Amino acid sequence: MDYFDNNKKTFLAKLDKSKKGEVDQRILPLINSLNAKSDFYTTSSCSGRVYLWKGKGKKNEMIWLRTSHDLIKEDFFQIKEKGQVWLRLEDFILHIACRNLETANLLLERVRKLYKKSCILSASNKILVEIRGSEFVEMPLYEDGKLLFNGSFSWLKKEINSRLKSIWKKEKELGKIIK
Amino acid sequence: MDYFDNNKKTFLAKLDKSKKGEVDQRILPLINSLNAKSDFYTTSSCSGRVYLWKGKGKKNEMIWLRTSHDLIKEDFFQIKEKGQVWLRLEDFILHIACRNLETANLLLERVRKLYKKSCILSASNKILVEIRGSEFVEMPLYEDGKLLFNGSFSWLKKEINSRLKSIWKKEKELGKIIK
Repeated sequence: MDYFDNNKKTFLAKLDKSKKGEVDQRILPLINSLNAKSDFYTTSSCSGRVYLWKGKGKKNEMIWLRTSHDLIKEDFFQIKEKGQVWLRLEDFILHIACRNLETANLLLERVRKLYKKSCILSASNKILVEIRGSEFVEMPLYEDGKLLFNGSFSWLKKEINSRLKSIWKKEKELGKIIK
Repeated sequence: MDYFDNNKKTFLAKLDKSKKGEVDQRILPLINSLNAKSDFYTTSSCSGRVYLWKGKGKKNEMIWLRTSHDLIKEDFFQIKEKGQVWLRLEDFILHIACRNLETANLLLERVRKLYKKSCILSASNKILVEIRGSEFVEMPLYEDGKLLFNGSFSWLKKEINSRLKSIWKKEKELGKIIK
């Protein structure tokens, strides 16, 4: 068992202990089929999400008010909060540790057809590939309780849900490519 | 002169001929100091921009209605168009060809302090590093001529301009790191 195999074993054992159930069910088949391959293991993932946030927009300075990893209903937008509340939608993202640069390049070449913005996050100690989509929404929704969106919540819900659906559709195609 | 030097020479000569004046002036000092180093050359860049678009949101299916690489005024938002018009702000992005993986890793390590989402786009034939910020806005602004934003244009302008300023501030810091 070499260095990579050892890291993989340790990482997956830890994940199994602490995070089981936390991994997004929608992405689980994809993760499982990657982890079944000897040259790869996944280190983090999100299958797409939508949330309301306030604060400064930086990861450690923002407050998440409400999150959904599923299709939303109109009441998702109804919230009473001081300050600015923003609505954000983030696309699928997946990090995959690879045995070496060669396997990383092969993986990258394959997934680029679907996810053009995929890349190698780290190529020194750990070889880490990032697969990510480029769908996003970032819009101001409230200012001190005043609604800043002038359309109907039904329209906005449809818009968000349609993007979520297209994110998940692409994930399924990725699953086929990776198998 | 090896393979990399040759590519660099050809690329920069072509750039000099066809694109001079098209490169964003704000980013020029950064590009020049990178191109002065023997291990790197820049292949594409944008120092941040804001635009109105309609269409399907994919690069080849969207119509750019209006773009600014500078601070905007309130009239930037005033437009008469059928269909959905979206407002988008994109952060700084820079692609740098590197002599080899070692120089790419060194560059990446250095710029990661400022731009966490930087990565290696390609590590097979050409070694290409992408430096990019993570500031963005993507909001629906009009639906068939009806304004979907309920706040004041003055507020929205301030919000967009403040993000542009913070994008440019960070670019200046990058300039110092890279020198």
